[in-house]
Amino acid sequence: MAPHPFKTLNIEETRIARDVVLAQHPDVVVDFREIFLQEPEKEGMKLFLDLEHSSKPGQSPTSKRPSRLAKCQYDIIGSDKIPEYHESIVDIGLKKRVRHEVIGKEHQASLTLWEFEILVEACKRSDEFQKAIAEFKLPEGFELVVEPWPYGGLDLGSENRRYFQGLCFAQDTRSGNPDSNFYAYPLPLIPILDAHKKEIIRIDRLATGGKGDSLTGKTHSEHIVDHCQSAEYVPELLPGGTRKDLKPINITQPEGPSFKVTDESLVEWQKWRFRVSFNPREGAVLHDVHYDGRSILYRLSISEMTVPYGDPRPPFHRKQAFDFGDGGAGNCANNLSLGCDCLGVIKYFDAVIVGSDGEPKVHPNVVCLHEQDNGIGWKHTNWRTGRAVVSRMRELVVQFIITLANYEYVFAYKLDTAGGITIEVRATGIVSVVNIDPGKTSDYGNVVSGGVLAQNHQHIFATRIDPAIDGHNNTVLHEESHSAPWDKVTNPNGNFYEIRKTVVNRSSGHDAAPEHNRTFKIINPNKRNPLSGNPVGYKFVPPPTQKLLAAPGSIQAQRALFTNHHVWVTKYRDDELYAAGRFTLQSQLEVGGVHDMVKRNEEVTNEDLVIWNTFGLTHNPRVEDWPVMPSEIFQVHFKPSDFFNANPAIDVPSTKNEASVLVGKECCLEKL
Amino acid sequence: MAPHPFKTLNIEETRIARDVVLAQHPDVVVDFREIFLQEPEKEGMKLFLDLEHSSKPGQSPTSKRPSRLAKCQYDIIGSDKIPEYHESIVDIGLKKRVRHEVIGKEHQASLTLWEFEILVEACKRSDEFQKAIAEFKLPEGFELVVEPWPYGGLDLGSENRRYFQGLCFAQDTRSGNPDSNFYAYPLPLIPILDAHKKEIIRIDRLATGGKGDSLTGKTHSEHIVDHCQSAEYVPELLPGGTRKDLKPINITQPEGPSFKVTDESLVEWQKWRFRVSFNPREGAVLHDVHYDGRSILYRLSISEMTVPYGDPRPPFHRKQAFDFGDGGAGNCANNLSLGCDCLGVIKYFDAVIVGSDGEPKVHPNVVCLHEQDNGIGWKHTNWRTGRAVVSRMRELVVQFIITLANYEYVFAYKLDTAGGITIEVRATGIVSVVNIDPGKTSDYGNVVSGGVLAQNHQHIFATRIDPAIDGHNNTVLHEESHSAPWDKVTNPNGNFYEIRKTVVNRSSGHDAAPEHNRTFKIINPNKRNPLSGNPVGYKFVPPPTQKLLAAPGSIQAQRALFTNHHVWVTKYRDDELYAAGRFTLQSQLEVGGVHDMVKRNEEVTNEDLVIWNTFGLTHNPRVEDWPVMPSEIFQVHFKPSDFFNANPAIDVPSTKNEASVLVGKECCLEKL
Repeated sequence: MAPHPFKTLNIEETRIARDVVLAQHPDVVVDFREIFLQEPEKEGMKLFLDLEHSSKPGQSPTSKRPSRLAKCQYDIIGSDKIPEYHESIVDIGLKKRVRHEVIGKEHQASLTLWEFEILVEACKRSDEFQKAIAEFKLPEGFELVVEPWPYGGLDLGSENRRYFQGLCFAQDTRSGNPDSNFYAYPLPLIPILDAHKKEIIRIDRLATGGKGDSLTGKTHSEHIVDHCQSAEYVPELLPGGTRKDLKPINITQPEGPSFKVTDESLVEWQKWRFRVSFNPREGAVLHDVHYDGRSILYRLSISEMTVPYGDPRPPFHRKQAFDFGDGGAGNCANNLSLGCDCLGVIKYFDAVIVGSDGEPKVHPNVVCLHEQDNGIGWKHTNWRTGRAVVSRMRELVVQFIITLANYEYVFAYKLDTAGGITIEVRATGIVSVVNIDPGKTSDYGNVVSGGVLAQNHQHIFATRIDPAIDGHNNTVLHEESHSAPWDKVTNPNGNFYEIRKTVVNRSSGHDAAPEHNRTFKIINPNKRNPLSGNPVGYKFVPPPTQKLLAAPGSIQAQRALFTNHHVWVTKYRDDELYAAGRFTLQSQLEVGGVHDMVKRNEEVTNEDLVIWNTFGLTHNPRVEDWPVMPSEIFQVHFKPSDFFNANPAIDVPSTKNEASVLVGKECCLEKL
Repeated sequence: MAPHPFKTLNIEETRIARDVVLAQHPDVVVDFREIFLQEPEKEGMKLFLDLEHSSKPGQSPTSKRPSRLAKCQYDIIGSDKIPEYHESIVDIGLKKRVRHEVIGKEHQASLTLWEFEILVEACKRSDEFQKAIAEFKLPEGFELVVEPWPYGGLDLGSENRRYFQGLCFAQDTRSGNPDSNFYAYPLPLIPILDAHKKEIIRIDRLATGGKGDSLTGKTHSEHIVDHCQSAEYVPELLPGGTRKDLKPINITQPEGPSFKVTDESLVEWQKWRFRVSFNPREGAVLHDVHYDGRSILYRLSISEMTVPYGDPRPPFHRKQAFDFGDGGAGNCANNLSLGCDCLGVIKYFDAVIVGSDGEPKVHPNVVCLHEQDNGIGWKHTNWRTGRAVVSRMRELVVQFIITLANYEYVFAYKLDTAGGITIEVRATGIVSVVNIDPGKTSDYGNVVSGGVLAQNHQHIFATRIDPAIDGHNNTVLHEESHSAPWDKVTNPNGNFYEIRKTVVNRSSGHDAAPEHNRTFKIINPNKRNPLSGNPVGYKFVPPPTQKLLAAPGSIQAQRALFTNHHVWVTKYRDDELYAAGRFTLQSQLEVGGVHDMVKRNEEVTNEDLVIWNTFGLTHNPRVEDWPVMPSEIFQVHFKPSDFFNANPAIDVPSTKNEASVLVGKECCLEKL
């Protein structure tokens, strides 16, 4: 029997897809970028899921099973040596290509990590670049490091060739430690690669001035890193070593985990049931999320993020990453290692990636699953009897972590015993820095170490929530609380406040409004809670974070139109997964993103709809963000709102944990 | 040697204070309300702390030691039997009263829990009340429960006598379980007690109607709880019992805790050093908070909270609690029990309370202290070498929990390894409900169970932050990020954004502005970070939560003027600890709260200043909040901002935790 329709493609399936593509392109070079699951069309999948959920455990419906499809992304390199980018869909069962698209030159395929190697090699070969580097007098023992980056937004009027840029640093190799932190020694030049020609076509020289200096003035001396300071983070290079007085906290689960994973994708835990998949662009995705046999979500994913920099000095306006669309969050996922990235009993999930020859291999441990305690879940003490009943909040965490050159993001979906789902993002890693002349400060960032300017920037994320609240026909509304006018009849003491509900009738963008406690509800208008009489639903309060600051109409803003609103509601269409559109690399304008989707002005009440939530962080670095920044944590909470008939966690036992101990008067441990 | 000046009064000291007071009032009855530490005046304390911090460990300065003072709050009951409320300050060392104040009749002393007993007793004795109750036909086995509440804001023009109100419920006693949840059976009447006369002086009848019904219509039948439903939460009464598949998570610290507590008040942990005290009004307070020998805060406390209800039907406008000012959060603190309220290695702190005779006794385990893991603290993977360095975030939690009739709040101060301080509040417990006629719904709340209307309400908290950023002279400013106009010279690509700083020059109130990423910084203008050149400081982003909704000028609004702004900056004065003023019980107007303090329009730059942060929750209940609501969690984060010269957690070891285990393919546990 074929794998479950939501399951990540396995190695065998991936090979079949590759072979079908190769057979279609016999006389050319095929350079593969990605092969991954093309998820089934929803209409067919609904029938399958209906059958699946009504089947007996262990049984799986076969009559309505959608075909296993692979999305294949590859370059065809013909005689002119200029790659042409193709996307095909292959039916694995039929071993047949069922869709084929040649992508126009106006778009660029997502980058692959091996393209980064081309930049590094081209720098080595480029006389111009080597000459530019030689202008600097690096101290003895310092060596050049080139850090490849996407090119950012293409300037208007420039030809859309495939470019990459390199940020340059010097690494102190005297310790012999390859993890010595080279970001502490930035060099003020950026080589630009034409990826098709595999040549450095230009070197951008960077300003290193401070307040009052012109945007283009090159004020630095040839002793470019002499005013920089070492900024190590690997423990063996820390001047003072690591602290010694942090004693271990061990998290053990002597009876094993409360979750069960079967079929390497189906997770069951505390009445929750869902599937996990993983793809190169979005990383971990949750599918078909149920609680106690009732449907809540069809699909949940992190869709996109953009990181624009606010330094106006050219070419820093091209520092703007789209870390999902440009290179793929899944591609950049860390191989998580036990005991550091999570504690407790941990289940890992693998993914499959392909090389440029299309040969698949396992990408191990890219997703981890574990339970954790999150403090008091609910408590009540009857003050008459003194009886306290306290039950803890347990969470199940599905986590993946990506590294994008200097930065890392920790993404987690947390499901809890009270029926809640939290999307959490932690931003950590090393802030992006440039060289600044000795003694100067800047309006464009903060000097976090000698000679090192951490530029002001933003991180704006988009999550995609495809709800299925007791079925696929849902409605979104927002609810606000408003002061009511004093009125002898209706509000004689002035304490009344009114709840106003506004239904989102057509696909559109909406904003957070914390001053009105604006809360978005995703309801099923066809089903009412028997107690309250309200439609069953889930709610969330969009974090009212600052939107994109780049001036309207600027390329930074135009390519990130998804940041214009905190909440978007669109009508569901197959394949519309990406908030900023399919193609973000070098884009000048968001095409096919949520901004375009809402333009269709579709009816979205009692329909199959999708909610997109954007939130972010304006990050003006502080010295404490150096050399590796402490996690900045964001959370969006989805909570049942008249979906259940009581607190779903009311049956969570209030058992006393016997492993906890007391510190006595003398600071010794006493077992109670 | 006398105890440390910040230490909670011990039993012996409390007795001395009581005896001094009794000696001052020889021929009358003295009913004590509270005896607790009167903290030293700051000017003297600064000298002491300077000496203390420059002393060798174990030594403590004696030359500058401030006197130990007790604040004594008591009623004097003379021949007219009408109590007169007094406050005295007693010098414990001198055994002498040093200050004495008779509080005017315009104010009411905070309530004591034994006053609640008077209400219950008076109800039993009141014929009128018994007759009113008898009008209802309660089912066999149901018994009356009277839940005493503060009276709320006094109506204008009414005489300021000392009142309490009782919310009435019926308890199903058929199970014989005294913890059967009586809140599920609300009765529509409220007896009003004159606490001095000890008599029920009035019975307010409650409307039970729904949408379209008048505010005063009494539409209910005599079978008042027949349409209500059982809503148990104690495990033995749950119809389905508790869930069986939640396996334990044990948190163990085989090498003991990383913290050290000496002198029953001094906590040292991971470069942090502070004192904990506890008082009847604010609960746990942190004093003299240092990191790595540098001062950050002089004092940190939760100052006040108000919970106004939005149901316009009289007398519900008088449902407005001030849980710190009315009855004292410390007085309502739970005796925390091991293994439920916290996990791991736990240290408890006791407090001292007095009976009405002034006799002190230990209030055990009112504060708990423990360490916890909070996930990834920082991480960076060098993608060239594959080397991942990941260090976890460790937190030290100082927690106390209060029960206020139906509701509970969990307050925690969390200090972390990255130099951050988080104030966390969890709201849980049972929402306040009233009876609603069968089948009706309401504009004033949500029907969460048969016949039970959970009224819309707000919770608004005020924290008091008395900073000492590298000294007592500090300045507050806020920093915003703003889009900059496109400009050929200064912003040629439109990506620049500008940081605007606004110094708070005079005592004043300010609001959150998330659309501008408004961030408040508390800086020491006299000391600069050597790397960035900025003044050293701490920052926080005030949660932009909804303000009080009661109409301006209403009594609910007038007595809670502290809710008018998210952030207040005032000049420090001794004894100004309470955001809503000293006296909140039955208040009609906030007197002496932050609203009054800022009116002094004082210079607050480079001064000893105090920051007050108000935040809250508009709580329109959902069915899932019943019968005990899942914790709603709020956090305010204070983070160093150019205070340190690098990430203070960079030396936290990245040791792999050996206790974690792997779930293998067959779901068995494998030790890695």
